[in-house]
Amino acid sequence: MITVAVDAMGGDNAPSEIVAGAVAAVGKRQDIKVLLVGKEDVVKKELAKHTYRAEQIELVPASEVIETEEPPVNAIRRKKDSSIVVGMNLVKQKKADAFVSAGSSGAILVGGQVIVGRIKGVERPPLAPLIPTEKGVSLLIDCGANVDARPSHLVQFARMGSIYMEHVLGMKQPRVAIVNIGAEEEKGNALVKETFPLLKACTDIHFIGSIEAREIPHGGADVIVSEAFVGNVILKLYEGVGATLIHMIKESMLQSGLPAKIGALLVKPALKKSLKSFDATEYGGAPLLGLNGLVVKTHGSSKATEVCNSIIQCVTFKEQGINEKIKESLGRQEAQTKNQPEA
Amino acid sequence: MITVAVDAMGGDNAPSEIVAGAVAAVGKRQDIKVLLVGKEDVVKKELAKHTYRAEQIELVPASEVIETEEPPVNAIRRKKDSSIVVGMNLVKQKKADAFVSAGSSGAILVGGQVIVGRIKGVERPPLAPLIPTEKGVSLLIDCGANVDARPSHLVQFARMGSIYMEHVLGMKQPRVAIVNIGAEEEKGNALVKETFPLLKACTDIHFIGSIEAREIPHGGADVIVSEAFVGNVILKLYEGVGATLIHMIKESMLQSGLPAKIGALLVKPALKKSLKSFDATEYGGAPLLGLNGLVVKTHGSSKATEVCNSIIQCVTFKEQGINEKIKESLGRQEAQTKNQPEA
Repeated sequence: MITVAVDAMGGDNAPSEIVAGAVAAVGKRQDIKVLLVGKEDVVKKELAKHTYRAEQIELVPASEVIETEEPPVNAIRRKKDSSIVVGMNLVKQKKADAFVSAGSSGAILVGGQVIVGRIKGVERPPLAPLIPTEKGVSLLIDCGANVDARPSHLVQFARMGSIYMEHVLGMKQPRVAIVNIGAEEEKGNALVKETFPLLKACTDIHFIGSIEAREIPHGGADVIVSEAFVGNVILKLYEGVGATLIHMIKESMLQSGLPAKIGALLVKPALKKSLKSFDATEYGGAPLLGLNGLVVKTHGSSKATEVCNSIIQCVTFKEQGINEKIKESLGRQEAQTKNQPEA
Repeated sequence: MITVAVDAMGGDNAPSEIVAGAVAAVGKRQDIKVLLVGKEDVVKKELAKHTYRAEQIELVPASEVIETEEPPVNAIRRKKDSSIVVGMNLVKQKKADAFVSAGSSGAILVGGQVIVGRIKGVERPPLAPLIPTEKGVSLLIDCGANVDARPSHLVQFARMGSIYMEHVLGMKQPRVAIVNIGAEEEKGNALVKETFPLLKACTDIHFIGSIEAREIPHGGADVIVSEAFVGNVILKLYEGVGATLIHMIKESMLQSGLPAKIGALLVKPALKKSLKSFDATEYGGAPLLGLNGLVVKTHGSSKATEVCNSIIQCVTFKEQGINEKIKESLGRQEAQTKNQPEA
């Protein structure tokens, strides 16, 4: 039995879509228990609209809500009875294996570190969303809020990302690359140049070198390593360019003559399908890796399907023992570092 | 009369499209003289295919070509008779006002600094391509090869970019923004946090604050300031996401049933038009600003139209006295800095 705490109050479509997502998840699998965290009366009212196995969903009251615009550090400190703080405490106290929220990214990132806490040896927990590519999906690690990373952080990101892609997504030997402005080893800023040889020396990842941003949408690598500032730019530009192009395509078809208008109707289903597969917000469940437990940030605009998927994702994470694998990997790393000066 | 040296040997479509572009430019304006730099026999043969006013095009022989994959610093040093080195020397010796090349980006960036040289006071010359947005175009400054910038560099980029957009593109009070991972002033990495107050204090630019990457394609700012690593990632991801989406849309239409296939034919013209307007490679003429003269890097895949546009762009640059305006602006900046400690 895996227990997932879910923030019933977070995101644009809370609480209705969140509750519906939780109901869908327990409908799919009998080995999940969902702890819905939120305002008691509100969540109760939503739950009353659904039928589900009562033993699989439990309501955990939390009287406060952290808003997106609140400064995260303050919010986490002050709103002790908010759905995010209460949910994360459930993970900390081992009453839940994971916490899923579509709420304030900042609060989730801060809470993950401050409340749930890092696995011993993890220097910085990265936020790692999946982004769509021509070939499927890639893991973009890190898109968190901790900027100005050090080379050792990026090496840990590469290791953790590799474990995630191999064991949660079932990808054999995921190709790991570092974001750079050229393919050659001597290119890059100081951080990339320092990190490159360290990644090359890692024996437990399949490092393929640098990746230029142009190659990311083509699926040039499975684990895309970058410090959080650049990662954030990539993630948000993905969304922005996609949304703008789709908008422009629609406009141009509608503003053209009758033949194009008829054509637009005929291509609509095919178009919708391919555009949807390239919508970064569709792959909403971004894990915050390296914590004592699992925290998953789903996109603010998540609907029931994405919430349900994020909950199920937690099951795979737990079943595959990702955190144990991360601990092992970091243990090996430490042993290697210790052996080096003695050699 | 404005004299533009053009690298006849650079880019994927050299020499035919380059020569055709030069012929088109002199056909459009009688006040331009083009110096076509390249292998004598090759360029002569191409020129023979066209008719043009002979006094407007002159061939300047250069026996060598710098290839894209050559390490730029070495190439500039060794290939003294390459089209890039010869063309840049024409600018240095004031025999040409500008140099246009679709060749090796690295060699153009190095040559611009080493051969043409910086305007006194310019700390670092930025490469500033125009990128398409929903509303038109924005200037992305810097996408060059010099990474790990300092705050003072970014402030100069903002000033130079603002002058360029106002006087070359005729935009009143261009909105200047710095690329950041959130809209709030306290967000960002060390570089952005240090640069933000400096930009805020600039009285000669219209600084609107931070811009998230998501807002760039929507046209959220006219001058988008960033250090070169992030600028490069933005530029290349723009190309990559656009190309991938277009590819996927085409595929999905063709793989669908007959109605979609018919529809695809009907929407094709409208689709083509809107996709073309969003193709970053279409706006190929990126100026390398802050040099004693003008160097314009056009996209490697440039055809005659883009080459012609880049040449005409040099005329506006010269006519509007952009370099004089940059000198004035930096002079004011220096005066301000000097006054501060005395105050």
